[in-house]
Amino acid sequence: MAQIVGKLAVIGQGLIGSSITRAVVERGIAREIAVTDASDKVRRRVRELGLGEARVIETAAEAVADADLVVICVPVGQIAQVALQVAPAMKAGAILSDVGSVKASVVDAIVPQLPEHIALVPAHPLAGTELSGPEAGLPSLFINRWCILTPLEGTDPSAVATAAQFWEALGSKAEIMTPQHHDYVLSITSHLPHVAAYSIFHTALRFERETNSDVVKFSAGGFRDFTRIASSNPAMWRDIFLGNKDQVLEILRRFQGDLEAFAEAIANEDGDRLVELLSTSRLTRRKVIEKEHISLQPKPDSMKSDRALARPYSSDF
Amino acid sequence: MAQIVGKLAVIGQGLIGSSITRAVVERGIAREIAVTDASDKVRRRVRELGLGEARVIETAAEAVADADLVVICVPVGQIAQVALQVAPAMKAGAILSDVGSVKASVVDAIVPQLPEHIALVPAHPLAGTELSGPEAGLPSLFINRWCILTPLEGTDPSAVATAAQFWEALGSKAEIMTPQHHDYVLSITSHLPHVAAYSIFHTALRFERETNSDVVKFSAGGFRDFTRIASSNPAMWRDIFLGNKDQVLEILRRFQGDLEAFAEAIANEDGDRLVELLSTSRLTRRKVIEKEHISLQPKPDSMKSDRALARPYSSDF
Repeated sequence: MAQIVGKLAVIGQGLIGSSITRAVVERGIAREIAVTDASDKVRRRVRELGLGEARVIETAAEAVADADLVVICVPVGQIAQVALQVAPAMKAGAILSDVGSVKASVVDAIVPQLPEHIALVPAHPLAGTELSGPEAGLPSLFINRWCILTPLEGTDPSAVATAAQFWEALGSKAEIMTPQHHDYVLSITSHLPHVAAYSIFHTALRFERETNSDVVKFSAGGFRDFTRIASSNPAMWRDIFLGNKDQVLEILRRFQGDLEAFAEAIANEDGDRLVELLSTSRLTRRKVIEKEHISLQPKPDSMKSDRALARPYSSDF
Repeated sequence: MAQIVGKLAVIGQGLIGSSITRAVVERGIAREIAVTDASDKVRRRVRELGLGEARVIETAAEAVADADLVVICVPVGQIAQVALQVAPAMKAGAILSDVGSVKASVVDAIVPQLPEHIALVPAHPLAGTELSGPEAGLPSLFINRWCILTPLEGTDPSAVATAAQFWEALGSKAEIMTPQHHDYVLSITSHLPHVAAYSIFHTALRFERETNSDVVKFSAGGFRDFTRIASSNPAMWRDIFLGNKDQVLEILRRFQGDLEAFAEAIANEDGDRLVELLSTSRLTRRKVIEKEHISLQPKPDSMKSDRALARPYSSDF
């Protein structure tokens, strides 16, 4: 594969940063790659893992020197701070990017203080696993996943094009939208499902304590799917919920209204209304599956999320 | 495997009924097996499928004649009616069972009119797939799944033991509890997750219409898991929600309270409280996984629901 950038710097070597490093090394996407992490332990671990020609650098400022593209892969709550710390050390015309799950609040915090010689092209690869740390990185993580880029109007179009090419070289499909629209869409597709999943746990735990009954023992399909959703890093989700506060609160209000519609139909024993409410999602699911078939190439087996759709759903009816 | 019953009658040949038929035939659990379905089309389909020595009978009354065990595998909303229709045609001492996802309301509807010569041992196998119809049946469906039996006090213990042995012969682990406790536990582990999943769809659909934006296009882990949960048969879930109305409404109220706790922490930008709320579910998940490892033998590959837990979770962080 063709080189997309000269020198790449990756700040942060958790799951996402380490996956980028591995994929870039494996695919020869950069001429040179410098990686770093604020944690001594993580830097040591990356050295031990020996990620190809990636050089492990002690500080972020050193790592970004002369880099053409800097990708910040730290928790959402630290992105703005790290961006403003490394930007002055970056060369003129370099591209600064990140991989955060929340965009508007982070962009708002960076832009007013960003040196003019830097092109900011925020990114959010819709990819991940429930694992974390440099060991968890997978070079195939981004293959056939969306990567949403949220540059502000007026950003150098060639910088945006390079960032898009970079993600496409990692196997992703790049899509451009505003930071606000990104946060709207993700509040539905990701943030709301996570709040719901976490809340179900609390409801279940309290019930288990109060009735001294073994809810977990009999947990099957529905509940287990939620355990999977709600098993992610607490600090990461704190940052996401706070970073997208207004959207998340708005979507939660709507969700509570929709729950209320179900509760009402059940309380009124309105079977027809229930069937109406229950039928809509079947149609949507069909849309989701069709979209996957249309838009996605086969994935490497270990990451095949369609498998969940294709296999019989072991449930708890 | 040893024969557990002489003559078995299975009323209803959808996913569950057909799976029971297949497993019983494959494992030689009954000396004789008579199956039926209210639908001409389904009966014809079962004949075409040719499920071993299972005889397809035109009417339920004929099918249950001389049966030692009758298992009603019809939608929850029709169980009581079918039970009261077939019971008078059953021989003295025969066992009447079912596979419904809701127990108390169905038992309450049956018991006052049940002939005294019949032993009622309601059952709920915690197993299923999102598919339906006789073609969808799998002989391995019940392997290593719980089957909850909810006999009333005073039921002939030997009838309960036979029913438990029957489900164990199908590969399940049998557990006995009251109908009320069953409905409590399932309201948490199954009914609440389904209402939540369905509600998320409605929230997402309205958002998509209002903003004309493609939520489905960017749906990843969280949302896709919900599409899977919310893709089941609308009439089945109507029956379940109405059949367990009081419990479902109670658990929905609690859930709304737990959502509110998240909303409050987010609105107050209380990061510590959020981490606290987000950490609890991690512990529970660990419990769920441990339980699975402790209590379940490896499953046939096609039904391996732990796979969802073991594989990296392709997410939308």
